[in-house]
Amino acid sequence: MTRLVLTRHGQSQWNLENRFTGWVDVDLTQKGEAEARRGGELLRQAGFEPDLAYTSVLKRAIRTLWLTLEGLDRVWIPVTKDWRLNERHYGGLTGLNKAETAEKHGDEQVRIWRRSFDIAPPPLAETDAYHPRHDARYTSVEPARLPATESLETTLARVEPYFAAEIAPHLAAGKDILISAHGNSLRALLMVLFKVGPDDIMGFEIPTGNPLMIELNGLNPTHAAYLDADRANALPACP
Amino acid sequence: MTRLVLTRHGQSQWNLENRFTGWVDVDLTQKGEAEARRGGELLRQAGFEPDLAYTSVLKRAIRTLWLTLEGLDRVWIPVTKDWRLNERHYGGLTGLNKAETAEKHGDEQVRIWRRSFDIAPPPLAETDAYHPRHDARYTSVEPARLPATESLETTLARVEPYFAAEIAPHLAAGKDILISAHGNSLRALLMVLFKVGPDDIMGFEIPTGNPLMIELNGLNPTHAAYLDADRANALPACP
Repeated sequence: MTRLVLTRHGQSQWNLENRFTGWVDVDLTQKGEAEARRGGELLRQAGFEPDLAYTSVLKRAIRTLWLTLEGLDRVWIPVTKDWRLNERHYGGLTGLNKAETAEKHGDEQVRIWRRSFDIAPPPLAETDAYHPRHDARYTSVEPARLPATESLETTLARVEPYFAAEIAPHLAAGKDILISAHGNSLRALLMVLFKVGPDDIMGFEIPTGNPLMIELNGLNPTHAAYLDADRANALPACP
Repeated sequence: MTRLVLTRHGQSQWNLENRFTGWVDVDLTQKGEAEARRGGELLRQAGFEPDLAYTSVLKRAIRTLWLTLEGLDRVWIPVTKDWRLNERHYGGLTGLNKAETAEKHGDEQVRIWRRSFDIAPPPLAETDAYHPRHDARYTSVEPARLPATESLETTLARVEPYFAAEIAPHLAAGKDILISAHGNSLRALLMVLFKVGPDDIMGFEIPTGNPLMIELNGLNPTHAAYLDADRANALPACP
């Protein structure tokens, strides 16, 4: 039996300010750091000893991973950071306050941008300071692959092949793995692991500071549960 | 011009207690954390933007690196952890108080164990709890390669090939690199980089919390300086 844990970063400064964040490298708040430590403590109590860890190239997920590994006393395990585990890119909404955006574009339009599977917000211009082409961490990525906006569908289109190529082989070889990532990149992983379709996926959301432990037979989930049962959200059935 | 920075972890709990540490995974004290943050601040002021980072599998060096990268706002760069950057293994002295050891074995014997190039302390028995064969982080290392004690000479014998195989090619390709490690693994790197011989190396010691910035032409140092000049130690001449 192999164990895969998905953990979602806690509160960031822009969560607190109610702004669309996406790929902007906003740090955790003190509350977010405490959520990460709590996640590490829950995993320690569960006896989880990951062999490998993966995260995005955004500090809110990286620092959540580091605080979790400190709680597990396993800071020495290999950690791989990759942009393909980043949050969904929010395009032209990046940096905007969610309430102000709803006032300007209407609640219904914002709901569509946030909750539809395949509709992306307007793209950022390449000259926009938030466009990933201006960020040193993406210089080794082929420019054509860098998004100016994303839907969950296009997020899935980068998460799925990354998982298949870089993470799944280690799971299949029996390694226990910890992934620290974001609301929508984790949602994409739920689609892959539990074979959830586009019409159903928006009903599932991993809470912050509440690690999701998935037991696998090969790559097939046989059991999944949040470690803090009192704060658990709905989970898809094991396929 | 390529830049390589060597940074030594700050005070650990066993530094504070004056005990031989070696491969025991002792954490930083609050003072040690502050030293690491100060090192990051000095590097930020110097405009250092490392492309890659390397550290040991011991948390006092890993956490020093993490705090340094937080200060540099570059937590997203790739970090490689390897046992071959570990501190020298102190064998049978591991865990002992330095003053008590001097009382028991005499000052001269302890001076020889601590300061000679090629004399190692008595080896640990394989059954000793401190022997690396009992530590999960070394399960992927061939058992015959795991030391029961080390001199600086045998430390160099693992640091040098690791540097040559894993770090030097990236420096030669023009990558700026940060290495967070330990008093004796860093001394071994000084031997390699500055071609310091066994008779001279004990005269050089990298202070804690004071990053050593080395400018290289290819793999040849052309300039080296501590960022905090008021707390600088002697440095070998550029060869």
